[in-house]
Amino acid sequence: MDYLLFFLFLAATFAAGSTGALFPTGAWYKSLKKPTWVPRDWMFPVAWTSIYLLISFAGARVAGIDDNGYAMAFWAIQIAFNALWTPVFFGLRRLKGSLPIIGGLWLAVLGCTVTHFQLDFWAGLAFVPYLVWVTIATALSIAMLRLNPNEKPLDLSAI
Amino acid sequence: MDYLLFFLFLAATFAAGSTGALFPTGAWYKSLKKPTWVPRDWMFPVAWTSIYLLISFAGARVAGIDDNGYAMAFWAIQIAFNALWTPVFFGLRRLKGSLPIIGGLWLAVLGCTVTHFQLDFWAGLAFVPYLVWVTIATALSIAMLRLNPNEKPLDLSAI
Repeated sequence: MDYLLFFLFLAATFAAGSTGALFPTGAWYKSLKKPTWVPRDWMFPVAWTSIYLLISFAGARVAGIDDNGYAMAFWAIQIAFNALWTPVFFGLRRLKGSLPIIGGLWLAVLGCTVTHFQLDFWAGLAFVPYLVWVTIATALSIAMLRLNPNEKPLDLSAI
Repeated sequence: MDYLLFFLFLAATFAAGSTGALFPTGAWYKSLKKPTWVPRDWMFPVAWTSIYLLISFAGARVAGIDDNGYAMAFWAIQIAFNALWTPVFFGLRRLKGSLPIIGGLWLAVLGCTVTHFQLDFWAGLAFVPYLVWVTIATALSIAMLRLNPNEKPLDLSAI
């Protein structure tokens, strides 16, 4: 693996991951009703840090292989949707409006998993925890939307 | 050019570009003091739409070429920083805190321009307007920070 490539992909995940610090879970998130199976708070940063390291590894492996076009395109799509989700959910508090974004993210991660497996076994495997986690996050988003039907999005234009 | 690749990269730019609709320029942005050379309002969507089409074209060209690893890694970095900037500037209203993000974006776009030129002349050329535009946007960000020294970021945790 090319370490410079690893750090370049890690830089992309750093931009996406910084949304977790910029748009933190505060009193609003705590006030939401959650399903009984919601992951503990400490699991989120642990899961995301692990996932970002794994997909940077996967990106660096696949970037060095010929005919990687689809894998690299899906890698770019997933990081864009990943960066977008947190500001829309925790910033705009759009429980419903963030669902198409996490749906798009799920599809992009599925695309990554398939296309990375086609090129390199370990790169494909590195995307599996991400696919599992986004599946859980999608189910959690749907559950929270149902449990909090009267939550209104934040209207920034009114502030 | 592979049209499916073009549409995949366009999907990534769609995620980043949707921040423009989700975090629109409202009364707050209008209230900011701006330098005399600020581009007209209509120029922003026109510039971004053109840039997103151009870099999707560039990505699709380079994705089909061998040894495209660095170009594809920089492509992923720029779209992550691109998606991040709008929510931090227009959502959190962080005039100062958004500067490292647009600085990171500028470096990523420079990296894209150089690495795409190394692989394909037209792909490199397609990144030049983006580099020019982000240079202008960076200068505009610095100018607005200086002209509005007393602007406070939005504190979401207080809402």
